[in-house]
Amino acid sequence: MSTPLFTLTTDFGLRDPYVAEMKAVILGLCKASQIVDITHAVEKFSIRSGAYMLASATPYFPKGTINIAVVDPGVGSERRSIIVETKKGFFVGPDNGLLVLAAQMQGIKRVFEITNKKMMLRMVSFTFHGRDVFAPAAAYLAKGVPLEEFGAEVVDIVKPAFAEVKKEKGKVIGEILHVDDFGNIITNIHAKDIVYTEGDSVQAELPHNQLQVRFLKTYADVMQLEPLLLIDSQSFLEIAINKGSAASLLQAKPGDRVSFTIS
Amino acid sequence: MSTPLFTLTTDFGLRDPYVAEMKAVILGLCKASQIVDITHAVEKFSIRSGAYMLASATPYFPKGTINIAVVDPGVGSERRSIIVETKKGFFVGPDNGLLVLAAQMQGIKRVFEITNKKMMLRMVSFTFHGRDVFAPAAAYLAKGVPLEEFGAEVVDIVKPAFAEVKKEKGKVIGEILHVDDFGNIITNIHAKDIVYTEGDSVQAELPHNQLQVRFLKTYADVMQLEPLLLIDSQSFLEIAINKGSAASLLQAKPGDRVSFTIS
Amino acid sequence: MSTPLFTLTTDFGLRDPYVAEMKAVILGLCKASQIVDITHAVEKFSIRSGAYMLASATPYFPKGTINIAVVDPGVGSERRSIIVETKKGFFVGPDNGLLVLAAQMQGIKRVFEITNKKMMLRMVSFTFHGRDVFAPAAAYLAKGVPLEEFGAEVVDIVKPAFAEVKKEKGKVIGEILHVDDFGNIITNIHAKDIVYTEGDSVQAELPHNQLQVRFLKTYADVMQLEPLLLIDSQSFLEIAINKGSAASLLQAKPGDRVSFTIS
Repeated sequence: MSTPLFTLTTDFGLRDPYVAEMKAVILGLCKASQIVDITHAVEKFSIRSGAYMLASATPYFPKGTINIAVVDPGVGSERRSIIVETKKGFFVGPDNGLLVLAAQMQGIKRVFEITNKKMMLRMVSFTFHGRDVFAPAAAYLAKGVPLEEFGAEVVDIVKPAFAEVKKEKGKVIGEILHVDDFGNIITNIHAKDIVYTEGDSVQAELPHNQLQVRFLKTYADVMQLEPLLLIDSQSFLEIAINKGSAASLLQAKPGDRVSFTIS
Repeated sequence: MSTPLFTLTTDFGLRDPYVAEMKAVILGLCKASQIVDITHAVEKFSIRSGAYMLASATPYFPKGTINIAVVDPGVGSERRSIIVETKKGFFVGPDNGLLVLAAQMQGIKRVFEITNKKMMLRMVSFTFHGRDVFAPAAAYLAKGVPLEEFGAEVVDIVKPAFAEVKKEKGKVIGEILHVDDFGNIITNIHAKDIVYTEGDSVQAELPHNQLQVRFLKTYADVMQLEPLLLIDSQSFLEIAINKGSAASLLQAKPGDRVSFTIS
Repeated sequence: MSTPLFTLTTDFGLRDPYVAEMKAVILGLCKASQIVDITHAVEKFSIRSGAYMLASATPYFPKGTINIAVVDPGVGSERRSIIVETKKGFFVGPDNGLLVLAAQMQGIKRVFEITNKKMMLRMVSFTFHGRDVFAPAAAYLAKGVPLEEFGAEVVDIVKPAFAEVKKEKGKVIGEILHVDDFGNIITNIHAKDIVYTEGDSVQAELPHNQLQVRFLKTYADVMQLEPLLLIDSQSFLEIAINKGSAASLLQAKPGDRVSFTIS
């Protein structure tokens, strides 16, 4: 077995030692591992935001990567802990919709529940399954434990409703998945959902604002502080302002409905 | 010798290149190392907060881990640089109380001062012992240099006063060790200091507020925005609000005195 | 070939998955790599700030380190992508001045443009050369691809104007390179540019304020909240306030002109 590669995506922030404790558990079981932080700044309790982060970053990781994600408002309740096996790797986390967007992009093969206490820390807290359940499960997975050892197969994983795109009479309707650190507005509309050509003028409607904006290739195609519409580096449709914050200007936030019509 | 594992805990933040410089020094001496950040967001100059972070995370790391911690208001003054050998691993940092809480939990064996200039960078700055003294000392330790080579044995390390819990007539009195990123209030009262049963109603007194709160197992045991008292995932007594910030509501901060009485 | 060591310096922040995607690309090509974050909190679009971070941290990394840096306001425009070979290692990033300060400190040997599409990701986005151009180029470099394979040699790299120090009649004139997380004001004036002796009284002039301050060795040489002038741990001249923020008090920010005269 070569060096296992793990990724971590959580809403824990970087102030508290929680992320380090997850890494400690992994390294205690698989000493020679690579662990990459995708982000720990998912908006607290936002499964949508976490799913977006995971779906953005995981396509770039090599085959066999084990992705652990924890945005877990239901920890301590009845929600299941799961492992999703895909054609490319694995996802470990809560069964609350968080893993599905990224896993579907890789092609889901099988899903198993984690119920076998031998695959968990000896003491499982009620509030921190990231460290006590997901991290050890991921490490045992890397050590070659077969999926069937973790628990029963799951056939009804929770599917998130937030990743739906509608098309009506030349209008594409979706929602804001994410606002990035630059203030760029990233929608759930994928490159393949639209047929715009460079230079097209598009009418964008958001809850608090609407604007006329051109579909272009890159930020440098407009003057400083001018808006544009583009396919971002993750292949999602994005509203941006060159060297400015589109989200501030348009009072936009994740979850807002957006629609686009060529004008 | 297998891959050495180091942890880093500081109040340096993640904006500045200071943490990277410590890692550079370690990797320059021990190329095939694992280095895990516990946190770099310890409240500036707060030895209490740093000690809490270290004591929370280090129990999860494997035997042999070398923990470097730097919260060092006295850098450049007469405070000593020390290595603490425990039954499980090592702690390297300033002799200002920062290391003691975590090291005591592992069982302290011996303590040595770092005075041998051969175990430091060639140029030692007056302001950055993390990079110039602690990082190289930790790396030489991983390379097998015996403790006696670093300096004289220390028998009077500085012991922090902040980790004291009192019990008076059914009342447990402690202080707030930490407020986490979710606004949860973490006290220095350990699971073993109390005898509460699930469902008990407890009177909590803080400097600016008091409240009646139930002792429960997990956040999901109360409605959204309701308070609860629980043993947190680090085994400390915690005041929390389900999906809210207890610290904001109760105007509470680290260092505040807290007391609990069953009512 | 031993384990390659990479560093990353960007203005991407730690909320978004961009940094993880760069690491994913590197690890996909060079699985057994070490990757160290210098910082991802460079002030957005500030080439000066990024250059300072890189120049501060890279001297501590071992020979052979490959440093990737991305502060790239011109991405998508005509600015070149380059690899700088120095006497000690490599720098990979945009040709906008970002790499020069750090590379010059190591001694620049040769510079090559990155234009060979075989050394890039198959799909190169217009907005994220960090992941699509610089990360794969750095990985191929680590795998031993010769510089000539990446593109043409460059003889006219962009040199930044911001790192100039003037001396006039006992006055040293420079600018603020950086304000660190503690509020310390770090200038572009190097230890070798001044001849002050411990205890000297120096007149400092900034755009919004001037102050009389003593040149000392370390923060602990003054009382709490008192100012001092010192050579910082990166060998730059720094204005600090013991346990306070000099930048707040003096309303100072990167790019401000500063001058110092012995009084």
